[in-house]
Amino acid sequence: MGTRPNSVLLLLVLIVSILLGTDAGVLDNRIDQCNLPDALVQEIRGYQPIVNKIVQRIVGGEFAGKTWESLAELVDTFGARLAGTDQLERTIDWVLERMGRDGLENVHTEEASVPHWVRGFESAQLVAPFKKNLAVLGLGTSVGTPRGGIIADVIAVESFKEFEGLSPVDVKGKIVVFVPKWESYGKTVVYRSKGASVAAKKGAVATLIRSVTPFSIGSPHTGGQDYEEGVRKIPSACITVEDAEMILRKYRRGETLTIHLEMEDRNLEPFMSRNTIAELVGTTYTNYSVVIVSGNGTAAAADDPSDLVDGEELGLWGGRAYKEAHKAEEKKEFNFFFESDIGTFEPRGLDFSGNKEAECIMREIVKLMGALNATEFETPTDGGPDISHWTTRGFPGASLLNKNEKYFWFHHSAGDSMAVEDPKNLDKCAALWAAAAYVVADLSVSIPKDVTD
Amino acid sequence: MGTRPNSVLLLLVLIVSILLGTDAGVLDNRIDQCNLPDALVQEIRGYQPIVNKIVQRIVGGEFAGKTWESLAELVDTFGARLAGTDQLERTIDWVLERMGRDGLENVHTEEASVPHWVRGFESAQLVAPFKKNLAVLGLGTSVGTPRGGIIADVIAVESFKEFEGLSPVDVKGKIVVFVPKWESYGKTVVYRSKGASVAAKKGAVATLIRSVTPFSIGSPHTGGQDYEEGVRKIPSACITVEDAEMILRKYRRGETLTIHLEMEDRNLEPFMSRNTIAELVGTTYTNYSVVIVSGNGTAAAADDPSDLVDGEELGLWGGRAYKEAHKAEEKKEFNFFFESDIGTFEPRGLDFSGNKEAECIMREIVKLMGALNATEFETPTDGGPDISHWTTRGFPGASLLNKNEKYFWFHHSAGDSMAVEDPKNLDKCAALWAAAAYVVADLSVSIPKDVTD
Repeated sequence: MGTRPNSVLLLLVLIVSILLGTDAGVLDNRIDQCNLPDALVQEIRGYQPIVNKIVQRIVGGEFAGKTWESLAELVDTFGARLAGTDQLERTIDWVLERMGRDGLENVHTEEASVPHWVRGFESAQLVAPFKKNLAVLGLGTSVGTPRGGIIADVIAVESFKEFEGLSPVDVKGKIVVFVPKWESYGKTVVYRSKGASVAAKKGAVATLIRSVTPFSIGSPHTGGQDYEEGVRKIPSACITVEDAEMILRKYRRGETLTIHLEMEDRNLEPFMSRNTIAELVGTTYTNYSVVIVSGNGTAAAADDPSDLVDGEELGLWGGRAYKEAHKAEEKKEFNFFFESDIGTFEPRGLDFSGNKEAECIMREIVKLMGALNATEFETPTDGGPDISHWTTRGFPGASLLNKNEKYFWFHHSAGDSMAVEDPKNLDKCAALWAAAAYVVADLSVSIPKDVTD
Repeated sequence: MGTRPNSVLLLLVLIVSILLGTDAGVLDNRIDQCNLPDALVQEIRGYQPIVNKIVQRIVGGEFAGKTWESLAELVDTFGARLAGTDQLERTIDWVLERMGRDGLENVHTEEASVPHWVRGFESAQLVAPFKKNLAVLGLGTSVGTPRGGIIADVIAVESFKEFEGLSPVDVKGKIVVFVPKWESYGKTVVYRSKGASVAAKKGAVATLIRSVTPFSIGSPHTGGQDYEEGVRKIPSACITVEDAEMILRKYRRGETLTIHLEMEDRNLEPFMSRNTIAELVGTTYTNYSVVIVSGNGTAAAADDPSDLVDGEELGLWGGRAYKEAHKAEEKKEFNFFFESDIGTFEPRGLDFSGNKEAECIMREIVKLMGALNATEFETPTDGGPDISHWTTRGFPGASLLNKNEKYFWFHHSAGDSMAVEDPKNLDKCAALWAAAAYVVADLSVSIPKDVTD
């Protein structure tokens, strides 16, 4: 395009992040009570031609389909890319090379220490009352079983409340299977993140969790989990919705079920990986008023569930490292944060966090996205775990609103692959992202903020 | 209910059948050109109160939810039930016991020789250019690999047409991966059923087939396959949509892919199993004018893909055995055939095959199903593989029209489980089936037929 904005556009690929609760954000239905200066409104409206040009170039021009192709090449070439693996480091090198080739500037990396969890051999089998292999995926940070695995009888419950009613005498030595009904990701994921320690407190030897998804075709969905301090760490894995519900039905009919669980998963010393950074230097403000556009190493198509656990679920380490490294200059330099972390289905608009004045500006900007049919505006943001290091402290930011009703169907499973990505929708998301970031970076004013620390 | 129809209702559980092409049937939009005698029309309309009573009893009365519970108990208790296994024989015994307890008459079995294919250990791994385990399921009747498996480079194609263009020199010694786009089950399944022999003719050592499904969340979908006579039998298995498409993309970028495939699957001597039969003896015609209601051992919820292959895919053996055993009396005794084999989602009505006069009668009968909102009528039948032994020869029959748009999402995969079945819809299907069968069996006339041999 040859056109560049006034301010720096900074592309930040944070290698580790975490999906926090992602219940539907509260739709802001208030009447637009903005009183922006008319000159600013007119300035924003003046971007309509350039927004349309960006959109046309990405969706209908020479870049059409290119985003999908590049992403496919990345996931097909490197496969699973857990933090701590050579595949991830080689992927970072590949991205750096591509960013340089694409003409981005100041392409570099910054050190980021990340947890190093290794998924080893994993196997679960119902051994009584009949034999059935259970598709299983260990949860990120889970310890393994002793060599040869654990063979134990099952306690199956639908809720923590039901589990509370059980005596430690009954739970001791058992494998506890949690089979919560899907309510929402935010409400249901607590069984995955906390189940192991809840069960361990009553003497359980392992936990298996019904995959956290509203819909299943026989695949387990993994994710991170947290051991409570001072509680014995027991192996924890997810099984399919189908198997979990079958186990619960059998258990409730009074049958004795026995499971053989073997997991060679283990936690190693932290690994020094890298955040991947590139810039599009602005014409006027060359080293501040930075607009940060963030993704993480696993993006929308991870091609392997083992990848996702490590890439997204171990605790926002990439974002944290970036925050610490740039603490001194953040207030002066950082203007706005974009993050796409909850799907790249058909775009709908922007999901914003920040103060009222910033909101009013972003409401005007999203109105420019008519060519993409993506003019919706919601607040506060739902999603954007990496940038939450800043948005929770008053920096303004936005995540990508998109038609992601089926996001959790694929989330952290073998189904999270290029098959989910539609090339046209991916182009539209890229166009929305590029156009919104361009306008924010080029605008004569910075986006207002109320930073609390 | 205490009410029984004039004629015999015969419940036939055929243990092996095959899902033939199941493209959408042609919706019959012709104006209803029926000229049934008015007395017959009035007689059929007179069944409205009893149809409503049957529906109410099953959907809203003491049987509400019972069908789902019984099916869950069956699949949960016996797990995978391949023909030739002790699990299937024990399941048959359980069904016999239940049928007797439910007050059915002449509960018995009849011998049926079935193919005996055994799924052994199965494993597929992409070993170059990177290592990735490929979820795999051998296809029914597939031979195994030599011990230790086959390690070979890959040829990946999208169609038989593309494969035709390849030289045997290039194919020899390779594992051929067929990655057909989903068009419809009928059109796409040919890659699963014929792929092995097509590839073997050019010297391939094994075939892997993209699962035959329009939608995937990382699960392989198995099914039967047929070796062509005189062609070397090579191992054949299905892999996930996601992995198949990834392999095709990498292959087309010019990469050399190597796969290690190990399958201990094998074909044993035919096994003598049983068709399971029970009757509801009519009040007037106690041993003829039989209305046959057929399912097969795997029904809608199989709980394990290995079950489905064997139960449904090895060639209509149960139906064939029944046909041969009752050849002498079929024309005199057999009135009408019902079969449910393509899902038990929300019912829509009946899908009919037979002559025009029979069609007119069934069009009147389906009008009685207003309480179920299931008054649709289509012809000819799409589905009903077991009863095709008779319907293809002019006997009248019907299969269950239901909202099965997602049927192939679960078909022959680990996702085909109780989680797919909705208790209320299952009740409605049972009610439609029971009511339609009752009316046909009780009607003063037999359903007309034009039997060709």
